[in-house]
Amino acid sequence: MTEATKNNTRPQPLPRDAFVQFRPMPTRWMDNDVYGHVNNVVYYSYFDTAVNAFLVENGLLDITGSEVVGLVAETGCSYFESVAFPDALETGLAVTRLGRSSVTYRIGVFREGAPRAAAQGHFVHVYVARESGRPATIPDHVRAALSTLQANET
Amino acid sequence: MTEATKNNTRPQPLPRDAFVQFRPMPTRWMDNDVYGHVNNVVYYSYFDTAVNAFLVENGLLDITGSEVVGLVAETGCSYFESVAFPDALETGLAVTRLGRSSVTYRIGVFREGAPRAAAQGHFVHVYVARESGRPATIPDHVRAALSTLQANET
Amino acid sequence: MTEATKNNTRPQPLPRDAFVQFRPMPTRWMDNDVYGHVNNVVYYSYFDTAVNAFLVENGLLDITGSEVVGLVAETGCSYFESVAFPDALETGLAVTRLGRSSVTYRIGVFREGAPRAAAQGHFVHVYVARESGRPATIPDHVRAALSTLQANET
Amino acid sequence: MTEATKNNTRPQPLPRDAFVQFRPMPTRWMDNDVYGHVNNVVYYSYFDTAVNAFLVENGLLDITGSEVVGLVAETGCSYFESVAFPDALETGLAVTRLGRSSVTYRIGVFREGAPRAAAQGHFVHVYVARESGRPATIPDHVRAALSTLQANET
Repeated sequence: MTEATKNNTRPQPLPRDAFVQFRPMPTRWMDNDVYGHVNNVVYYSYFDTAVNAFLVENGLLDITGSEVVGLVAETGCSYFESVAFPDALETGLAVTRLGRSSVTYRIGVFREGAPRAAAQGHFVHVYVARESGRPATIPDHVRAALSTLQANET
Repeated sequence: MTEATKNNTRPQPLPRDAFVQFRPMPTRWMDNDVYGHVNNVVYYSYFDTAVNAFLVENGLLDITGSEVVGLVAETGCSYFESVAFPDALETGLAVTRLGRSSVTYRIGVFREGAPRAAAQGHFVHVYVARESGRPATIPDHVRAALSTLQANET
Repeated sequence: MTEATKNNTRPQPLPRDAFVQFRPMPTRWMDNDVYGHVNNVVYYSYFDTAVNAFLVENGLLDITGSEVVGLVAETGCSYFESVAFPDALETGLAVTRLGRSSVTYRIGVFREGAPRAAAQGHFVHVYVARESGRPATIPDHVRAALSTLQANET
Repeated sequence: MTEATKNNTRPQPLPRDAFVQFRPMPTRWMDNDVYGHVNNVVYYSYFDTAVNAFLVENGLLDITGSEVVGLVAETGCSYFESVAFPDALETGLAVTRLGRSSVTYRIGVFREGAPRAAAQGHFVHVYVARESGRPATIPDHVRAALSTLQANET
């Protein structure tokens, strides 16, 4: 399957310790597509949920009120093993890059308790002023919280 | 925004001639998220639809009958400008890599008639035998059709 | 199949002339579920899209700006025949009840050009003040436009 | 709001004891629409998940193998209070009608621990032979399990 992408850059499934925080992520009937597995698109809804749940639960994002919010600039996912409803899944979350106005998250999708990710990817938020859409510096309290998720690049 | 990803690798919006085929892709109310724009996840459903509609319409995939089918091994998307329901969109499709058992598509999401993509990404199918899940050679008639979509790497 | 619901109340597929306006509604790959047909949930995204596209295109709803908006109070759908990606579908739209602060739409999902609906249902909007959430009278220009969609109860 | 539907038939939010079984149903970021609340469509994905999770977990449905499966003939939902990501929700499940070849479920969507449903609806499965699509009698072991969910009509 190394053929799938350029040469030897095909990523390998990450272990649990590549992630700082885990969250249960139950599947839904609709997540399965016609091949009987979670559709490739749906993994990104797990990513989105893992990131934003972290932000909201830690008081870092008021969905309707925050003046500075993260817009998604880039996402990507590698799929290693299929998963399917009604599997119980978990997402692992880490921050691999924390810039002045952007943050890159690493997200893994695990079967509950599995040692390695069934799929993993990245999710880049660029902070902007909600009204103007102009790039903004990540607020200090957000930066402080994000830094607790930092992991090494692998 | 070059900060968003590593140095000078932030992709630039592709022009229409980076794609071989276009398809209308109307938006749905639900595509918009709480920020009033099409959610990052939904772009992948446009990708998925563009690729599979090409395959089905050209007789290259019988969703319930084909013995060899493409499984999604990797996807990615860069978002440049937001789009929103009820915008009329188009997807552009091209093949950038055609291997023995895998194919990489380039997909662009355009506002109708726009000269450059509002978002673009890639989508890798690895062909497998449906029953066994074992990697399979892309069937000849599929390869022939995919080769008509070939574009240069940009 | 009369057994499916109470006695003789099982609705019958409506003909095209039970609807005032039609709109193309292309399917997406993800619309199909594991049984290879459009999932029951997805029909409601067609309903939602048909109603809101009518409102936005006729200048009756500014998604981020209108002070009075319709909230969904009730929906329902009867499914007669399965449809599946990549079928081209159409939605038919009509108004069956236009009250002081609420409107009931009838929506049909047709295969392109088919004489009878593959599925049909209803969608009730109750108008409220966006800020307070209090019930509001349907604005006059909205009422005037909705009245052009009126059809008889069947 | 009685105006929303015919006369005095507007349903009232059901209490917990109108349901036999509860299941956690976490929200996802994408569930929220542009108004900041779970979109009306998404409730049906909770319904679908509640019913099918019950069936699969009790060995009543093998998604890819069962010869007799339930197809959805009718669904409906009344929305009383909005809910929003990241709310923790629960679904309540009951059977209100168990016929020879069809079953009607009642489903409620509750904020975690709330005494009354934020939304509730019904979901009708008609059993058919998977291959032929012909109506089929509900298998005995399925009927026995469904009868444990029976509740009175309210």
